[in-house]
Amino acid sequence: MRKEFEFLSNLKRRFNLNKIGDDCAVLPKNSTRDLIVSTDLLVEDIDFRRDWMVPKLLGHKALAVSLSDIAAMGGTPIWSMLSIGIPNDIWQTSFADEFYDGYLRLAKKFNVELVGGDVSKTPDKIVIDSIIGGEVKRNKAVMRSTANIGDLIFVTGELGGANAGLKLLEQGFRYSDGEKIWRRDLMLKQLSPFPQIGEKLSKIATSMIDISDGLSSDLRHICKASKVGAKIYANKIPIYKKIGGLTKNAAEQLDFALNGGEDYELLFTVKPNKAKGLPYFCIGETTDKPNVVELEIGGQQILLKSNGFQHF
Amino acid sequence: MRKEFEFLSNLKRRFNLNKIGDDCAVLPKNSTRDLIVSTDLLVEDIDFRRDWMVPKLLGHKALAVSLSDIAAMGGTPIWSMLSIGIPNDIWQTSFADEFYDGYLRLAKKFNVELVGGDVSKTPDKIVIDSIIGGEVKRNKAVMRSTANIGDLIFVTGELGGANAGLKLLEQGFRYSDGEKIWRRDLMLKQLSPFPQIGEKLSKIATSMIDISDGLSSDLRHICKASKVGAKIYANKIPIYKKIGGLTKNAAEQLDFALNGGEDYELLFTVKPNKAKGLPYFCIGETTDKPNVVELEIGGQQILLKSNGFQHF
Repeated sequence: MRKEFEFLSNLKRRFNLNKIGDDCAVLPKNSTRDLIVSTDLLVEDIDFRRDWMVPKLLGHKALAVSLSDIAAMGGTPIWSMLSIGIPNDIWQTSFADEFYDGYLRLAKKFNVELVGGDVSKTPDKIVIDSIIGGEVKRNKAVMRSTANIGDLIFVTGELGGANAGLKLLEQGFRYSDGEKIWRRDLMLKQLSPFPQIGEKLSKIATSMIDISDGLSSDLRHICKASKVGAKIYANKIPIYKKIGGLTKNAAEQLDFALNGGEDYELLFTVKPNKAKGLPYFCIGETTDKPNVVELEIGGQQILLKSNGFQHF
Repeated sequence: MRKEFEFLSNLKRRFNLNKIGDDCAVLPKNSTRDLIVSTDLLVEDIDFRRDWMVPKLLGHKALAVSLSDIAAMGGTPIWSMLSIGIPNDIWQTSFADEFYDGYLRLAKKFNVELVGGDVSKTPDKIVIDSIIGGEVKRNKAVMRSTANIGDLIFVTGELGGANAGLKLLEQGFRYSDGEKIWRRDLMLKQLSPFPQIGEKLSKIATSMIDISDGLSSDLRHICKASKVGAKIYANKIPIYKKIGGLTKNAAEQLDFALNGGEDYELLFTVKPNKAKGLPYFCIGETTDKPNVVELEIGGQQILLKSNGFQHF
């Protein structure tokens, strides 16, 4: 079985592609600012399904995942491009109008200008590639690779809601008027995530990533890139409260928060002397055991596997 | 029937998207340079077919179409990103290795650095989004919208080869060792176009576009954007010579050159006093009849329709 990670790291080595591997690539802009760019591919039946998608929310999400990449570098989003492939039957509906409407409303909120794109026919599935450009102060982009041993680990918000919403959609529930409010709320976390603002963290975060694959996977991305380990505490991990509607089982709830992806909260590290009074959730600390991620739960220490989303 | 052009112009008006509509978007970089960015979506069974694709050449083409967008602005390519969606069965083959190999070899030739991207699974079709960033001197990007009445119209090279190659592929011929050289040559024009260099034209071209949809369509894009007309002469249009292997019929040959897309030659306008001795093909001149494109053929003048590639 080919693994995406091995394929890409092999490619990076062979062709000396040093800018690949973070949420955004960092490129020189001028004497005071760097340009940061990112791209995210969303594919029907992999990332969303036609029978549960709400076109306006899908448009919102397409931009939100890119805004989240900019946030994860501590940057400010500026411009975007959108490549979209649409099958002919969908092109004949109001899908494109509603999709762009959702996309452009969020763009307006974030003061992002759509500057280009491509529209193509596809044989049967919708595909979306969301491209974003932003800025950071020169040499101040917050990377995944710069956590120190002994830093504290934070997340910006409660986790697991988006994955719980996905579960409901897979079970056949739909985001519709008649649905119970807690179910609508969870489905909305999946269908219409709201990106965080990363700029305010750029002065204190020693490393940062957005939680797209899941906490257990994304924390490992930081550990690998920074050559550190991590120890996190189950009782400190903030769990999205409305998951309680879906399950009262604490282990299942924790599983959503640890391994469910697409919450688009930020995961970042801070030096202990800068961490006092931060209005975020401290869930643990980095350690001197490279690539070892430990979870303390019920007085026991276990090695945490990366059970988040795998692309291949 | 919804038309892509109307949909996009409506969107541009509603959301005030002024940077959309040229080969690249132009964004401020620093006091001397502008950033130019573009994105191109290639979809299996729309833009290429699995049974005729050569992965290495497809990788080359994915970057070539983007390099051509940079050339059409008179710019220099600098960096690129690549989003690619691959079905699982293709992921298990050597496709990705060969595809990236073709892409990165061309990148090296043009001194372009691949700085980011996304790899995703797809249910069944290959999709590729090719993103490129480049530079031009500040306020010197060559737009589609700046042709003057009375400018001379040029193309950089012979036309129609890529479309003739497409026809051969559709007829069942394949780019393989045993195939006749003229057929291989035509198929190579389709499978592996080589982008032009646009920088050298930036000082003289008053407007420019790359020929991706076809001469008749792309000339109209310039006319619409510049609010001018155009008159071109059939006997001045350079036709790719090896088309003669496919058809000796002069009208059919001209049809390939006028309406066949994907040659990725540049189409540009020049003030008459700057045009002397240019090593390109002068095919006509712009006129004061907005959006009227005339073709002089056999002493007759006909109105030329845009019969090039339509995305929807």
